[in-house]
Amino acid sequence: MTKGRLEAFSDGVIAIIITIMVLEMKVPHGADVAALRPLAPVFISYVLSYVMIGIYWNNHHHLFHAVERVNGRILWRNLHLLFWLAQVPFATGWMGENHFAPAPSALYGFVLLMAGVAYLILQRLIIAAQGPDSIVKKAIGNDWKGKLSAVLYAVAILFAFWWDWISLALYVVVALLWLIPDRRIEHVLRSGVAG
Amino acid sequence: MTKGRLEAFSDGVIAIIITIMVLEMKVPHGADVAALRPLAPVFISYVLSYVMIGIYWNNHHHLFHAVERVNGRILWRNLHLLFWLAQVPFATGWMGENHFAPAPSALYGFVLLMAGVAYLILQRLIIAAQGPDSIVKKAIGNDWKGKLSAVLYAVAILFAFWWDWISLALYVVVALLWLIPDRRIEHVLRSGVAG
Amino acid sequence: MTKGRLEAFSDGVIAIIITIMVLEMKVPHGADVAALRPLAPVFISYVLSYVMIGIYWNNHHHLFHAVERVNGRILWRNLHLLFWLAQVPFATGWMGENHFAPAPSALYGFVLLMAGVAYLILQRLIIAAQGPDSIVKKAIGNDWKGKLSAVLYAVAILFAFWWDWISLALYVVVALLWLIPDRRIEHVLRSGVAG
Amino acid sequence: MTKGRLEAFSDGVIAIIITIMVLEMKVPHGADVAALRPLAPVFISYVLSYVMIGIYWNNHHHLFHAVERVNGRILWRNLHLLFWLAQVPFATGWMGENHFAPAPSALYGFVLLMAGVAYLILQRLIIAAQGPDSIVKKAIGNDWKGKLSAVLYAVAILFAFWWDWISLALYVVVALLWLIPDRRIEHVLRSGVAG
Repeated sequence: MTKGRLEAFSDGVIAIIITIMVLEMKVPHGADVAALRPLAPVFISYVLSYVMIGIYWNNHHHLFHAVERVNGRILWRNLHLLFWLAQVPFATGWMGENHFAPAPSALYGFVLLMAGVAYLILQRLIIAAQGPDSIVKKAIGNDWKGKLSAVLYAVAILFAFWWDWISLALYVVVALLWLIPDRRIEHVLRSGVAG
Repeated sequence: MTKGRLEAFSDGVIAIIITIMVLEMKVPHGADVAALRPLAPVFISYVLSYVMIGIYWNNHHHLFHAVERVNGRILWRNLHLLFWLAQVPFATGWMGENHFAPAPSALYGFVLLMAGVAYLILQRLIIAAQGPDSIVKKAIGNDWKGKLSAVLYAVAILFAFWWDWISLALYVVVALLWLIPDRRIEHVLRSGVAG
Repeated sequence: MTKGRLEAFSDGVIAIIITIMVLEMKVPHGADVAALRPLAPVFISYVLSYVMIGIYWNNHHHLFHAVERVNGRILWRNLHLLFWLAQVPFATGWMGENHFAPAPSALYGFVLLMAGVAYLILQRLIIAAQGPDSIVKKAIGNDWKGKLSAVLYAVAILFAFWWDWISLALYVVVALLWLIPDRRIEHVLRSGVAG
Repeated sequence: MTKGRLEAFSDGVIAIIITIMVLEMKVPHGADVAALRPLAPVFISYVLSYVMIGIYWNNHHHLFHAVERVNGRILWRNLHLLFWLAQVPFATGWMGENHFAPAPSALYGFVLLMAGVAYLILQRLIIAAQGPDSIVKKAIGNDWKGKLSAVLYAVAILFAFWWDWISLALYVVVALLWLIPDRRIEHVLRSGVAG
């Protein structure tokens, strides 16, 4: 089975998540610049989530670039990942509207952690399906970024109840970690292992 | 006529249904964990519907994988299926917000039943168009899963007015029935009947 | 310039219009069957518009199936068509919520008329671009369906202010006119004029 | 890495932005023509933004038509452009609901300016990646349209606080500037530099 529809469907879902999330910022009633001020924390949390979802799309793009065939199990693991990504707008809105209060900040980290775990499961399944010469495995190596992100999310969830700004800072750290573009699969592909 | 646009359009509609449905969970006003509690039944019904829509996408993917050409009648039967799938978020919301009350639970089953029937009609039309050597027909056999699901939905609709939790249990049973991935078409395809 | 992205973009926009329109039916607050009754006119108008948008998608699919290359002018005429289609949910909602009152029924006809005109303009532009041997021209002939639909919409707009149910009946007539699938382009294509 | 998914994802996001924006016009409660009158400024601002987003989609289509391979940096610059385009519905709604008041009109210009700058950055990156024989560079020449638009937006932002209608007029001028379709890349492509 080819990967075309899985990619198209995932692109559709991620495009909807990332766009609707931004569109959810409600138009204020006042007509002056001050009317925008209460939206600041909401806007900041949307920018953060936009970058996070952008990172997932980017990595998903790279991951499936190295895949040729998919099966039913990969379809479902992919839907599992999309499920958690679809929770991001809810967690983002709750966190932004409550100015990064403890419980919303912790939930935000939990959703990102679950999305991260879903991504690792999907990645592992693809590596297993590709067998010993897996291009994906060569490309990601020990995947320290993926594992470190999961640890940072877990730490952020715990800290959220003590000192909530540290959680936000940790989420930003994870985003920056990935914004350095993931050229690993590009490198391996370019070096001739695959077309 | 090639199937590319039918698949792309269906992917688009299903991606919107599945994502918007999840996005419809309203952000609560409170900032503590307790504020999430009233959302529990809504969340449970959304998870159930996410799996249901995911099953349809999966099966749709498999079904059209074995199709080469489409005609106007297939386009319309497909739109008919998408129409009933598009009613799922409404039925899900009504059921979740009313804590699985009788009428909403019955409507949920009715919408799923109609979607199931629409799928069976579409499948039959494709088999007829493929002629006596239909790959789809070989793959699905007597399609006991599709028929059993329809029967279970009908039973669930009736039970909804007596004992509503049994309806919910039956919907979960149908979901589990299909979550065992539908490898039938994959098998037939792999065994060399088609590319 | 190839037509791939124009088709994909149009599919995306039409998928969003048709799906969001259905999703706009608000979940009622009551939990019994009676709570659904006020939704009946809204539901009926949504079903009508679903069929109408489905017809446009179908015809768009057939139209561009016979097109090989697009240019900037075709892109814009296509955006023009999508603009009027995107007004359909608004007109549908206004008509449904006001139980087919005169002004909303007339606006509904106006939006459909504008969409129909936009489609005719797009079709004419494509025929002109294809030159004297235009496949599209052969396929549609004198396009009596397109022209008759425009006339029926105009009549429906006028009647809306006298006897509103006749407008609704006329819209249903137009839908039925097109539901008889448009096999014209399929026929011409199959008879060997084009691949 | 091929450009297919970048185009599909961008099409998805732009289709959602342009469609949801139009769908955001709320159905009025009254059933007579007068009930539509308060929507006039909202409708005008939506039409303007529809054209603006249409221009971006058109130019994006032309730009990537001349691109063969993309890399991680292009993916991110493209997401940056989509981010600013996704702010357009918010700015449009705020401007329309406040009848083109100073602050909303200035914000609208600011969002369009940022989108324009993001487009120029993306374009420059693509030209750099294509090297000295860049087709895109040949096609756009000195890109006076892109630069003039940025200047006009900046002027419009400043004027918004003195005389707000001049801002709106300037936005319309920029739209007209681009509505004259951008045949530059089409010309270069057709003249044999690239397939």
